[in-house]
Amino acid sequence: MLERYRTLSFLSDYGLADEFVGVVKSVVRSIAPHVTVIDITHEVPPHDVRAGSLALVRSVQYLAHGVVLAVVDPGVGTDRRAVAVEAGEGDDPAVFVGPDNGLLASAVSMVGGATRAVSLTNAEFHLPAPGPTFAGRDVFAPVAAHVCAGVDLAELGESVDPISLRPGILPVPRVEDGALVAEVLWVDRFGNAQLNVGPEELEAFGPRVALRLGDQVRVARRARTYDELGPGEVGLVIDSYGLVSVAMSRAPAAEFLGLGSGSGVFLAAPD
Amino acid sequence: MLERYRTLSFLSDYGLADEFVGVVKSVVRSIAPHVTVIDITHEVPPHDVRAGSLALVRSVQYLAHGVVLAVVDPGVGTDRRAVAVEAGEGDDPAVFVGPDNGLLASAVSMVGGATRAVSLTNAEFHLPAPGPTFAGRDVFAPVAAHVCAGVDLAELGESVDPISLRPGILPVPRVEDGALVAEVLWVDRFGNAQLNVGPEELEAFGPRVALRLGDQVRVARRARTYDELGPGEVGLVIDSYGLVSVAMSRAPAAEFLGLGSGSGVFLAAPD
Amino acid sequence: MLERYRTLSFLSDYGLADEFVGVVKSVVRSIAPHVTVIDITHEVPPHDVRAGSLALVRSVQYLAHGVVLAVVDPGVGTDRRAVAVEAGEGDDPAVFVGPDNGLLASAVSMVGGATRAVSLTNAEFHLPAPGPTFAGRDVFAPVAAHVCAGVDLAELGESVDPISLRPGILPVPRVEDGALVAEVLWVDRFGNAQLNVGPEELEAFGPRVALRLGDQVRVARRARTYDELGPGEVGLVIDSYGLVSVAMSRAPAAEFLGLGSGSGVFLAAPD
Repeated sequence: MLERYRTLSFLSDYGLADEFVGVVKSVVRSIAPHVTVIDITHEVPPHDVRAGSLALVRSVQYLAHGVVLAVVDPGVGTDRRAVAVEAGEGDDPAVFVGPDNGLLASAVSMVGGATRAVSLTNAEFHLPAPGPTFAGRDVFAPVAAHVCAGVDLAELGESVDPISLRPGILPVPRVEDGALVAEVLWVDRFGNAQLNVGPEELEAFGPRVALRLGDQVRVARRARTYDELGPGEVGLVIDSYGLVSVAMSRAPAAEFLGLGSGSGVFLAAPD
Repeated sequence: MLERYRTLSFLSDYGLADEFVGVVKSVVRSIAPHVTVIDITHEVPPHDVRAGSLALVRSVQYLAHGVVLAVVDPGVGTDRRAVAVEAGEGDDPAVFVGPDNGLLASAVSMVGGATRAVSLTNAEFHLPAPGPTFAGRDVFAPVAAHVCAGVDLAELGESVDPISLRPGILPVPRVEDGALVAEVLWVDRFGNAQLNVGPEELEAFGPRVALRLGDQVRVARRARTYDELGPGEVGLVIDSYGLVSVAMSRAPAAEFLGLGSGSGVFLAAPD
Repeated sequence: MLERYRTLSFLSDYGLADEFVGVVKSVVRSIAPHVTVIDITHEVPPHDVRAGSLALVRSVQYLAHGVVLAVVDPGVGTDRRAVAVEAGEGDDPAVFVGPDNGLLASAVSMVGGATRAVSLTNAEFHLPAPGPTFAGRDVFAPVAAHVCAGVDLAELGESVDPISLRPGILPVPRVEDGALVAEVLWVDRFGNAQLNVGPEELEAFGPRVALRLGDQVRVARRARTYDELGPGEVGLVIDSYGLVSVAMSRAPAAEFLGLGSGSGVFLAAPD
C-alpha cells in the first residue's frame, strides 16, 4: 500500500449526536491507517448543500494538502453522481470526494479548478451496503481512504468530463436604486453576519452605512475590530475571510437584527 | 512498552461542552502515545445506557480493530463492576472496556461474544482519584491505554466468568391482533425513526403499510431511498443498518409524527 | 524541522458548528504534521474568559506534555497582547499560547508558574490575514505549530516579564454570619454544580447542610457518590476535581435548583 496522502479533511451534515462521523472515520482507518482525519465541521444544517459549500470555500485554502471528503447529500441513493475530482496544478493535486450536487464546486475552483474527475461506479472500492442511505460510510469513505492509499482515480469508475460537474452557486450582490443589494452568506457562532460583499464595494460609502433589513433601517459604522464598537452599536467589519460582516462587540448582531443565512440586506448612504 | 493496539474507539455520554472527552484522551495519550483515538459519539443522552448500547451495536462492525472504550455509567462509584472484556475469535481479540451495566453486551455479542473478562480491581492501572465520580478518567481511560500498550487482562484485576456479565436488552417486535408491534430504537439527526423490524418482517405487507402511532394512523409507502418519496409523504425505507426506518424526503419524519426513542409503532395492512 | 513537542492540546470558544476548529487544526498540520491535536473543549460560551480559564484549570494536570493552545479572545484585534508562556520546571517546559487576558494564568500557575514569556510580535511566524478577527487561525495556530516544530520563544517576539501577565481570577469563598458564602464555578453536562469549596471547608458542618439559594432553602445530604442519593434528594458530593458539588442522582441538580455558573450559594448548619 502506498501512503500517498496523509491527511483527509472531512466535512458533512452528519452532526455529532449520532455515530455517523465516527463510523466514517473508522472505515477510513481500517483501510488506510496512516491517514490523519481532520474534521472541518459536521454541523452543516441537514441537507443544506449551500451552507456546506460555503463552509468548504471558507476553509479550503487552509486545509493540509491531501484528500477532502465532503458529504451533504440529500439525494443519496438516487441517480446523482458520486464523484472524485482532482484539482490544482502540478503532479500532486488535491482530491475531492463527494456527491456531484454543487457541494464541491466552489472549493474546487478556488484551488485551481478540476483537472480530472471520475464517477464512483467501481463497487470494488465500496463497502457492501445493507441499504442505500449511508453513502458516506459505504462509498465515499472507502473511496477516499483508497485514494489516500494510492489508488488512482482511473480505477474508481468511469471518467467524467470536469465541465459536466454540477456548478456551485455563489450569490452576487447587485446595485438597485443606488443601494447595494446583498445577502447574508453565513452567521457564525458569535452572531456575526457575513455578507457577499467585499471591501472594495464599500468604498462608495463613507464611515457610516445605512442597512435596510426588511422594515427596519440601522446605521452601521465601519470598524476594524469588533471590540472598537460601542455597546449596542452595529458595525461593518472586514472579517477574517476578507468579506464585509455585520457585527457588534461581544454580542450576536445577527440575532439582534433578525438576520439568518440567506437574509437580504440593502446597503446605502445614510439620509 | 508494546504497541499492541493502535486504535481506541471511544463512546460516551460526556457531551462535548465540558472537557471530559478531552481529558480522557489526554490520559490515554500520556500513557500510550502511539494510539489514535476515534470518537464514535459522545452525545449519548446522559445516563441512557440503552441508547449508548444501540449506538455501539450500530457501529461495532465498522470499527478499526483495537480497543473499544465505552462509558455511560449512571452507577459510577457504586458496586457496579468496571470490566474489560475480550471478544471475538483467534489470538487477536478486540477488547471492550467500560461499566458492566449492559452497555457493552450487545456489541460484544455481535463481534463473536466474550471469551475472557476481568473486573478492574487492580488500582495499579488506575489514576489516583480526588473523588469517585469520574471513572472514565481515573479507571477506564488508563486501563484502556495500558491494554493498548500490551498489558494482559489478567493483570488488570480478578477474572470474571463472561456468563456473569450483565446482558444487553434489545426489544423484540411481536405480533398482536394481526399487527406487528414495533418500537423506535433510534431517531437520527435527519429525523428518521429506526424500528426494531427487519425487511423480512415487512414481507407480509404490500407496498403500503398502515402505521398506528398513539391515536393517529398514517399510511406509509415502502421506498428504496428517501428521495423517491413525495413532499410530505411518509415512507418505510430499509436503512443503512438493514432495519426498517420511518422516513420522509428531506424532512424529519420523527418530529412530524411525534416519534422518539422508545415510541411504540403498530404496523398493519391498510384498511 | 525539530519534532520538539508531539501533542498540542486545544481549547476555545469557537464551537463546533462553524469550521473554525477544523481550520486551526489544518493550519497546525500544514506547519507541523508530526503533531497530534487533542481537543479539550470548544464549547466554552462565546467570549467567556472565566469559563475557559476554569475548564483549562480542571484539565491541565491531565494534559499530555506539550503545547497548550487556548483561545477565548473577545479583545481580538485590539491591543491585548498575544503571548506564548513557558511554565513548569526543568529543561522541558510546557508552552501555553493564547491571548494575555487571564485565560491562561490559573493553568500556568497550577503547573508551576511562568518561567518565560513573549509577546507574539514577530509576524514571520503568522499567516497573512485578510482581516484582524481570527487570531486563532492567523497568529496562535501557526505560532503553536512552530513551537511544536522547535522554534524557541525568543524568536516569536519581544520578551515579556512573566510578572506582567494578566492574572486569573478565581473566586474565594468567605464566611458571613456563620454561613459559608460560595459560588458556582461550573455546571456540568449532568447538571452537577461545582462550588468553590473544598472538602475541608465542609468539616464544620454535619452530614446535612442547609443551602440557601436566593429565596429558597434546601437541606443537602453529604454523599460519596451520586447514586447513593434517593430520588429527588439533593446531595453534596466531592467531585472528581476534589471540590464540593451540588448533585442529585441521575437528575440535573443545577436545573432543579436554578443554579448557573456564578450563582451564589450560602452553606450553613440546618435549623
